[in-house]
Amino acid sequence: MENIARTDLALERKEDVKEETLQGVIVETQNREGKDIEKTTIIIENEEGEKALGKPKGTYITIESESLREFDEDYHRELSEELRETLKTLLGGTKEILVVGLGNRQITPDALGPFVVDNLFITRHLNKEGILNTYYDISAIAPGVMAQTGIETGEIIKGVLKESKAKALIVIDALAARNTERLNKTIQISDAGICPGAGIGNNRVPINKETMGVKVIAIGVPTVIAVPSIVNDSMGKMLEALDRLDAKKVIKKFTEEERYRLACEILEPYLSEMFVTPKNIDEAVKRISYTISEAINQM
Amino acid sequence: MENIARTDLALERKEDVKEETLQGVIVETQNREGKDIEKTTIIIENEEGEKALGKPKGTYITIESESLREFDEDYHRELSEELRETLKTLLGGTKEILVVGLGNRQITPDALGPFVVDNLFITRHLNKEGILNTYYDISAIAPGVMAQTGIETGEIIKGVLKESKAKALIVIDALAARNTERLNKTIQISDAGICPGAGIGNNRVPINKETMGVKVIAIGVPTVIAVPSIVNDSMGKMLEALDRLDAKKVIKKFTEEERYRLACEILEPYLSEMFVTPKNIDEAVKRISYTISEAINQM
Amino acid sequence: MENIARTDLALERKEDVKEETLQGVIVETQNREGKDIEKTTIIIENEEGEKALGKPKGTYITIESESLREFDEDYHRELSEELRETLKTLLGGTKEILVVGLGNRQITPDALGPFVVDNLFITRHLNKEGILNTYYDISAIAPGVMAQTGIETGEIIKGVLKESKAKALIVIDALAARNTERLNKTIQISDAGICPGAGIGNNRVPINKETMGVKVIAIGVPTVIAVPSIVNDSMGKMLEALDRLDAKKVIKKFTEEERYRLACEILEPYLSEMFVTPKNIDEAVKRISYTISEAINQM
Amino acid sequence: MENIARTDLALERKEDVKEETLQGVIVETQNREGKDIEKTTIIIENEEGEKALGKPKGTYITIESESLREFDEDYHRELSEELRETLKTLLGGTKEILVVGLGNRQITPDALGPFVVDNLFITRHLNKEGILNTYYDISAIAPGVMAQTGIETGEIIKGVLKESKAKALIVIDALAARNTERLNKTIQISDAGICPGAGIGNNRVPINKETMGVKVIAIGVPTVIAVPSIVNDSMGKMLEALDRLDAKKVIKKFTEEERYRLACEILEPYLSEMFVTPKNIDEAVKRISYTISEAINQM
Repeated sequence: MENIARTDLALERKEDVKEETLQGVIVETQNREGKDIEKTTIIIENEEGEKALGKPKGTYITIESESLREFDEDYHRELSEELRETLKTLLGGTKEILVVGLGNRQITPDALGPFVVDNLFITRHLNKEGILNTYYDISAIAPGVMAQTGIETGEIIKGVLKESKAKALIVIDALAARNTERLNKTIQISDAGICPGAGIGNNRVPINKETMGVKVIAIGVPTVIAVPSIVNDSMGKMLEALDRLDAKKVIKKFTEEERYRLACEILEPYLSEMFVTPKNIDEAVKRISYTISEAINQM
Repeated sequence: MENIARTDLALERKEDVKEETLQGVIVETQNREGKDIEKTTIIIENEEGEKALGKPKGTYITIESESLREFDEDYHRELSEELRETLKTLLGGTKEILVVGLGNRQITPDALGPFVVDNLFITRHLNKEGILNTYYDISAIAPGVMAQTGIETGEIIKGVLKESKAKALIVIDALAARNTERLNKTIQISDAGICPGAGIGNNRVPINKETMGVKVIAIGVPTVIAVPSIVNDSMGKMLEALDRLDAKKVIKKFTEEERYRLACEILEPYLSEMFVTPKNIDEAVKRISYTISEAINQM
Repeated sequence: MENIARTDLALERKEDVKEETLQGVIVETQNREGKDIEKTTIIIENEEGEKALGKPKGTYITIESESLREFDEDYHRELSEELRETLKTLLGGTKEILVVGLGNRQITPDALGPFVVDNLFITRHLNKEGILNTYYDISAIAPGVMAQTGIETGEIIKGVLKESKAKALIVIDALAARNTERLNKTIQISDAGICPGAGIGNNRVPINKETMGVKVIAIGVPTVIAVPSIVNDSMGKMLEALDRLDAKKVIKKFTEEERYRLACEILEPYLSEMFVTPKNIDEAVKRISYTISEAINQM
Repeated sequence: MENIARTDLALERKEDVKEETLQGVIVETQNREGKDIEKTTIIIENEEGEKALGKPKGTYITIESESLREFDEDYHRELSEELRETLKTLLGGTKEILVVGLGNRQITPDALGPFVVDNLFITRHLNKEGILNTYYDISAIAPGVMAQTGIETGEIIKGVLKESKAKALIVIDALAARNTERLNKTIQISDAGICPGAGIGNNRVPINKETMGVKVIAIGVPTVIAVPSIVNDSMGKMLEALDRLDAKKVIKKFTEEERYRLACEILEPYLSEMFVTPKNIDEAVKRISYTISEAINQM
């Protein structure tokens, strides 16, 4: 099934599907008592679930917090701790970790991954040399995107993995959301890897357990919205407005899918190469990258 | 008159107006022989012209080049020369120049101004100390945006002008266009100053001869498109599509202005804080900033 | 009196002078109980004190902490709090603050000031617009160095001050120390302004109460050592080595001042344009800039 | 033999050795007619030559130009062309090239390699997709230093090489020189690979044909001087000064090697972790990185 509206968040895929229950999909929501954190776990169990949500099998944990958008140092500590515990659970004791900051550091909303790597406390070489003795061996790389390297990012990671002998990957990337309300306040953690074409980047080889040969934990934060999503949304709203103007027959002519296709068609070709991002994206990306790197540093 | 579709380019304002000739507006187009450069001069002579195009009186020169989007070093030299000659003409012999790179260097499409300043060859202090003896005294500042400084950018510039005693300002800023075809391949030079709210920034005090007390030459390059413009465009295209589906009565209900208002209304409030920019914006901004700084360096 | 060995730290000037007590100089040392913080206050009371230490009248507070060099988040909070309280005392209730990040952001050890400004929470415009209501109105600018602007940094600040009507300046700069042991672990706060030629920059107009017309609080961190200091030190050590080899007559030929002059002479001309900095300077500058901006953000 | 004074330039090693002719070392100097370019080729033929110069077998080409330090666009074109031709000769027709920008982009004098990669025109993926059809397939990576990644840089490169199947490496790094006169105006090109511990970085695994399995061409520019070199130089000059003061017996006590050891001893431990760099290093690194990337882009 094609995406009805383009999003990298399993949570938004779930919302797109109108049915309450789906075969092969388990959804569980938790609110952290006294904290502004909402945690949703979506498990896609089998092929039926994959089909329903258009994403590969696996666990998708979404941590949302209204405050992530704001400047409040203490709160982010709680969020950072939630993320840290989630990561430790998913790692299940594996010690040798390669953190990969995906994305292009020269484009603000795509720089999340490289910025996280910049703030990491790297321990692998210090443990090896006997200077430190931490539980996790953290190594890291921010390989850049294919336009910068000429090489599929998945290939670079595979090569570094083989030489460094890490046993698990933590992959960080900027994502695309459909809903502007989710930008820069949602963290998705998944063991299903990163799907091709996520966010602004153009990685076409999936980075997951099958292709990499080790456990892959993906951390993603939506920092942009695809232009077709914005247009699709507005078209929906415009059709509603037309509806109120008594033009019901027109609206009947469009299913939601037809509308999205129309949006894509209208926009070709140059707009598909564009993205929508908020004006305060620099602060947002800096702040969230710090929260994520702290979660890994404190593991 | 309100903007029909938001753009900082006088050329696009002119296109919005359907009439061939406008009271108080002179338009002249030149093609440089054997070169891929199109130069359009729009002169807004009086209040009538101001009303017609929604921009203040003055001269707006647009240099367009298909190749500015591409990697071709020699060509940009021609474009750079065209820009240099235009600047020299507008400066009319004034020697003491303060170049101001407007915008936020942390947000890629807004970093054009600061990047130009980074590449300038600064001569004022060297001339003063007798180390150099160039015709122009070039000084420069990249003050940042109000969210970074807490101070209106116009106030900062005024303060620096008074102390440095420069006699003319060259102000460089990223602009918003309406048409994606113009992004990153158009340079607008104007003696009418920079209007408030241009591009991504939020400068609300106009920077022009009246507010600054010296000649102001503005160089702008469209690097983003406002979300309402994108949505307005798509709505137009969708209405055309509906038209083909025989729903003429619906379309009749909207004038172009009503449609733009609807677009704005639909999008409020968060989308008005967003912008649309191409995926290769990092290279584009680096390349164009280099072309502009070369034009000034070679004056 | 000329500097015996070049340093911007009053504490090191004091150490150079062999006498225990100096006319016009008061020295007080405090150790924060249970904390790894040593705070030294040097007050230069009058011209005699100025002569003795080669620095202008005023209070120089040095906060030193072994841990500032290391990665230990909680500790820096204590240091940051110490700095915050010191700043509040020196500000004495003044609310309208312009923070100036001196230095060149493109040169790692000189980027301290600009990095602090990058991390500040700017409130002046938000208070003015009624969005916030904080005690301090924080505005900020990172003007760059004269090679980048062509304008004396003091002139830029004066201009911005006049327009923004701030009532106090907090000026942040990278300093030069004489002793490598002090690099990146010492913060000097002073109400005596910034002296010309400090650190890597070349500001020749002093930035102090007299030149700026408002209270000036300078925060400095030594991130580099001047080459003559290094050479002078090594020459001293070599002469000691020669001494042990029974060449006493040679050493007798040099006073400390003669030795420093010899060092300068030997090094001319290109080495005077050089500086010495540690290999991990990037992390050090990032970490300390964060500690300083937190102190200001939490005021 | 141990290095008498630490330098990464074969040319400076040659100068250290007082003899005119050396077994196993061929030296040839060319001046480009009418151009300010001096090209020196040093060939280390065998183990005797390796011993004499303390560098591995291979060809070391040094291109020096007084003007590289200055702002003169046209000249750098000549230098860039000289470099381009040298690279093409050394590549000998190999088409699949991986360019590696060594160094830490956060430390100005060490950012040369990453900056070159930033400006490269990457073609491998475009050729593969049939969008372009250039002779060379250029891919590139700027892996960072071990403190940032936790992994030996040589291991990262090996991994990427295996996956990307490039047939030759061009490795770019900042070097250490002994003589300040050579900083930022000398380019060394070599087919002998990069020796461990070069420049500011701490790569301990050599990157050469033996370890990488493909041809390795190293491009290096001295941007720093090791502190022991500076101190050694000054000690030499001071001993000369003492000499003039009639203390001949003292000087006799030191061979050049003893003096360097004394310099190292005096400086331990913290100064060995420091480097000396000029104040204008930001411009210098930007300018030279542009010259190098142009040479590769125009191949």
